[in-house]
Amino acid sequence: MTGDKRIYLFDTTLRDGAQTQGVDFSVTDKAAIARILDGLGVDYIEGGWPGANPTDDAFFAEPPALTTARLVAFGMTRRPGRSAANDPGQAALTNSKAGAICLFGKAWDFQVDVALEIPRAENVDMIADSVTNALKHKSEAMFDAEHFFDGYKGNKSYALDCIKAAYEAGARWVILCDTNGGTLPHEIERIVGEVTAHIPGSHLGIHCHNDTENAVANSLAALKAGARQLQGTLNGLGERCGNANLVSLIPTLKLKTDFEIGVSHEQLCKLTGASRFLDELLNRAPALNAAYVGDSAFAHKGGVHVSAVEKDPRTYEHMEPALVGNQRHFVVSDQAGRANVLARFRELDIDVALDDKRLNALIDQVKAREFEGYAYDGADASFELLARRSFGGVPGFFKLTRFRIMDDRRWNARGELVTESEATVQIEIAGRQLMEVATGNGPVNALDNALRKALLPVYPALQDMRLADYKVRILTPQAGTGAVTRVMIESADKDGRRWTTVGVSPNIIDASFNALHDGITWKLIQEGAAAGGTLADSN
Amino acid sequence: MTGDKRIYLFDTTLRDGAQTQGVDFSVTDKAAIARILDGLGVDYIEGGWPGANPTDDAFFAEPPALTTARLVAFGMTRRPGRSAANDPGQAALTNSKAGAICLFGKAWDFQVDVALEIPRAENVDMIADSVTNALKHKSEAMFDAEHFFDGYKGNKSYALDCIKAAYEAGARWVILCDTNGGTLPHEIERIVGEVTAHIPGSHLGIHCHNDTENAVANSLAALKAGARQLQGTLNGLGERCGNANLVSLIPTLKLKTDFEIGVSHEQLCKLTGASRFLDELLNRAPALNAAYVGDSAFAHKGGVHVSAVEKDPRTYEHMEPALVGNQRHFVVSDQAGRANVLARFRELDIDVALDDKRLNALIDQVKAREFEGYAYDGADASFELLARRSFGGVPGFFKLTRFRIMDDRRWNARGELVTESEATVQIEIAGRQLMEVATGNGPVNALDNALRKALLPVYPALQDMRLADYKVRILTPQAGTGAVTRVMIESADKDGRRWTTVGVSPNIIDASFNALHDGITWKLIQEGAAAGGTLADSN
Repeated sequence: MTGDKRIYLFDTTLRDGAQTQGVDFSVTDKAAIARILDGLGVDYIEGGWPGANPTDDAFFAEPPALTTARLVAFGMTRRPGRSAANDPGQAALTNSKAGAICLFGKAWDFQVDVALEIPRAENVDMIADSVTNALKHKSEAMFDAEHFFDGYKGNKSYALDCIKAAYEAGARWVILCDTNGGTLPHEIERIVGEVTAHIPGSHLGIHCHNDTENAVANSLAALKAGARQLQGTLNGLGERCGNANLVSLIPTLKLKTDFEIGVSHEQLCKLTGASRFLDELLNRAPALNAAYVGDSAFAHKGGVHVSAVEKDPRTYEHMEPALVGNQRHFVVSDQAGRANVLARFRELDIDVALDDKRLNALIDQVKAREFEGYAYDGADASFELLARRSFGGVPGFFKLTRFRIMDDRRWNARGELVTESEATVQIEIAGRQLMEVATGNGPVNALDNALRKALLPVYPALQDMRLADYKVRILTPQAGTGAVTRVMIESADKDGRRWTTVGVSPNIIDASFNALHDGITWKLIQEGAAAGGTLADSN
Repeated sequence: MTGDKRIYLFDTTLRDGAQTQGVDFSVTDKAAIARILDGLGVDYIEGGWPGANPTDDAFFAEPPALTTARLVAFGMTRRPGRSAANDPGQAALTNSKAGAICLFGKAWDFQVDVALEIPRAENVDMIADSVTNALKHKSEAMFDAEHFFDGYKGNKSYALDCIKAAYEAGARWVILCDTNGGTLPHEIERIVGEVTAHIPGSHLGIHCHNDTENAVANSLAALKAGARQLQGTLNGLGERCGNANLVSLIPTLKLKTDFEIGVSHEQLCKLTGASRFLDELLNRAPALNAAYVGDSAFAHKGGVHVSAVEKDPRTYEHMEPALVGNQRHFVVSDQAGRANVLARFRELDIDVALDDKRLNALIDQVKAREFEGYAYDGADASFELLARRSFGGVPGFFKLTRFRIMDDRRWNARGELVTESEATVQIEIAGRQLMEVATGNGPVNALDNALRKALLPVYPALQDMRLADYKVRILTPQAGTGAVTRVMIESADKDGRRWTTVGVSPNIIDASFNALHDGITWKLIQEGAAAGGTLADSN
C-alpha cells in the first residue's frame, strides 16, 4: 500500500467544508463526522483551526478517538515581523492535540503585495519558519500553498520559491491549492507536471474548488501528473461552489484507476450511507443526482433503458451500485418495488413467499404513503413497523384516545417572560383508560413527557429511551392540495441503538405524535414487551 | 465565427433533460425554455421526440418562433427489417416542423447483441438508411452514437463502422455519446483524438453524462481533442446524475478558452437569470453552490477572504460575477471578522466608522449567539435586524405581551379524529393593547395566523407576505446545558422577495415566535412602515 500509486486522502469537511454558506457545525457534529470519515478509511482529517473560534477550540481540546485516520490542525503561517516560536497563532496549533499541522500561506506575489502588504522575502521566511517550528512539536507538518496556480501563472519563480521553502524546511506534503477555483484541467495537469521537476510528486498534494464545475477532474488531472495527496470534502462542501467531492473521487479512484487508496471494498460500501448521514446532520435533502450515491444515480426512467437493464445492467450502468452501498431503482417498474421490498425483508428476517398477496398491498401502501410525503428511506424503523403490520406482527401496545396541549407565554414569579408547554394525554392500555399531564420545552416535548409518564409504569423498558433528534420540514404543496408537515424523530437508548421514525400530517403536532408512536412501538418490540405490559400481567 | 475554433452548442434540456427523475415539462414549459435558450445564443435546441408522446407531438406541431437557434427533432434509427421510407417512426421525424433531425443508434456490439438482438451488419445499415432518408426531407441530419466510448473500448472497429456509416451517408454531425457516464476525461481525450483520424473533428460532437462528476471536464477534453459540437442541458438536467451542464460550460468556453461560441457577452449576462428561470419553472430551490450562477458562487464567509476581496476581488474570485449576471455577496458568521460585518453594512447602506465601538460589540454578539445556536449565515434578514438594532435603526413595530396556544386532538362532529390548534395573542402597538385568536395547522401556524389578524389592520403591507419554508433542528446539547431548538423560517412576498430569519430557544414555540417576529419586522422595514402603522396615524 505504499507503492508509488498510493494516493493519500485528506478530508477537509470539518475545516474548508465549514466555510459552506448555511453550514454551522457544532462540536458534537464535528466529532460525529470525524468518526464517519475514520470509518471510511481516509488518511487525514482536518478538524479545524484551533485558536480561531470557540467551536474549534472545544473540538481540539477533546478530539474524538480515531482508529486509522490522523487528525490535522489547520492554521496560518506566523505573522509578519515575529518569530514563529513567539507567535500565539503557532502556539494554538502546536499545543493542540492534533497529530499533524497543516499551515497555509501565500504562493502568489500579487496576494503578498495586495492582501498581506509585506515584502515578498518575508513571506518566504514566514513559510520556512512556521514549518520548522511546527516540526519541533509534531512529527508531521504540511503546507497549503494558497493560490498556487494563479501564482505560478503570474510569477513562476516566486511561486516555486514559496513551496520549496516549505519542502526544504521539512514539510511532509506541499499542497498546491487552486484557491479561487478558476483553473481548468489541462492547466492543472501541465503545471503539476512542471512542479514535479522541483518537488517529488510523492510530496505533492492537490486542493481544488468547483467554481467551473471541474474540481473532481482537476484533482484527477493532478494525480495523473504525479501528485499523491488529494484534498476534498464529503458531498463537495466548501466555500462558494465547494471543494473537490471525495464522495465522487473515492469510488473513481478505487474502481476505475490503478491508483491505491486506504479505503477497502468493505469501507467503500459505506459511502452512500456516509454521504446521506452528512445531509441528515445538515437537515438538507440529499442531491438526487449525486454521482455514485444519489438516489437517482442508478434510477432508470425511460422504458427502453429499463428493459435493457433488466436484460443486463451493464447496458445502462457504468458500475454495480452495491459497490458503493447504493441501489438500482426502476422509476416505472412494479417489479423493482417488489425486489427492493423483498431485499429489506431479508434484512429484517421477515419470511415472505414471493407470491404472497400481502406483498403487493404493502408495495402499493409504501408508494401511496411516499406520495403523501412519507420518506421511508430515512426512517427504517417506521418502514419495519409498516411491513410488520402488513403481516400482523405488531401488538397494539397503547392507543392515544386524546390529548390537549397548552403553550403559554407569560411573566413568571421572578418577573421573567417564560414560555411553558403543558400536555394532557388520555391513553388506553389493555382496555384501561389512563390520564396523565406533564410540562415540557414546547408542545412535542410536553406530549412526549406525558406519554412516558403514562406508559412507564406499564412498560418500564421505555426508561432508557430518549429523543435524540427532531426534524421538521414543510413539503411543497402539490397543485391544489394544502402543505403537509413531515417530522423525523431519531430516538436512542442506552444500548447505543438509534432508530428513526417518520410522521406526516397537515398538523405538525399530529405528525410528531405519529413519529413518536412509531418510535415507542419499535423500542417495545425490540425489548420483547407484551401488549398490556405489566399492567396486563397484574390483571 | 466559423474558424476551426468555433464550437456549436447543442442543448438537449427539452429531450434528455426531460428524463430527469421528477421532471415533467408541459408544452408551454417547453416553449418557454426554448425561447430562453434561443435568447442565450445556443446553436441547436433539441425539442423532444415527435411520435413518442403527446407533449412532444404538440410541441412540434406548433413550435415557438426562434431567432437564431435551429430546432432539432430526436428519434431512433429505423426499426430492423424495414426500409426507412416505410417506417412510421421516421415519418414522425421527417414530417415534424423541426429544421434538423438527430437520429440515435447503437455503436456498441454488446448492445446490438444483448439489447437489440439483431445482426451487427443490420444495425450499421439501419444507421446509414435512416440518415439518407432524413436528408431527403431536411437540410440537416445528425447521428447520436449511443454508448460510443464503451463500444470503442470493447470493439473499436465495429464502433468506427457505425459512425462512419452515418458520416458517409451525409450526417452533418456524428455525436460521440458516453451514455452510461462512466468514462474518465483522459480516456475521452484519447479516444476522440483517435476518432479524428477517421472523421474530421469539425463533424464530431460530444455528449456526456455526470455519473462520475466529470461531465463538464469530459466535454472540455473532447473539444481539446478536436470535437466541435457540444451537447448539454441547462443546470445539468438529465437521467441519473444528469448531462453536461451548459450553464457551467458556456462561461468557461467564453471567458477561459480561445474557442468561439455563438453566445455574445450581452447574452452571457443573462446566464444566471436563465438558470434560475428553469428552477422556478420546476419549483426547485436553485443550487446555492452552482458554478458561476449559484447564490454562493461569489459569496465570501472566511474573515481572511473578505478583507482581501475588499482590497481587490481578484484575490478570491476567479472572474467578475457581473459577466454572467451574478453578484458578490458577503456572509456573516462565527468564522467572520470585522471585515465581513463591514462589507455587509455597505451592502445594507448602513454607514459605520471603522473604529465605532458598537462594531466590536456587534461582532462579539454574533459570535456569542452562534455559539448558543443561532446561524446567521443562513438567515440574512435576522443578521440585518441584529445589525440595525445595534445602531438604533429598528422601530418597535409591535410587542407580544403574551400568547396562549392550545392543541387538541379529539373526535369531530363527523366522527373523525382531528388535531386542531388555536392561538390567542395579546400585542401592544403604539401603546394600545390588541387581542386576537385564530386556528391553524399546528401551534406555529395558529400563532402566525393570530399575529397577522392582529397586525393586518395596522400594517396592511403584511397582506402579501407568506411563510415559504419552516425548518427545525434540535441542537445536540453541549456538555452540561440543555438542548436548544433552532427554527429557520423563510418568508416570501408577491414581489418575489425571499428572506430567512432564525430563532433559538429551549422552547420550540418561543424559537418559532422569534423567527416570525424577525420575518415580520424585516418586511415592515422594506415597506417603509412607521412604528404604530395606520393605528398610530389614526390616533
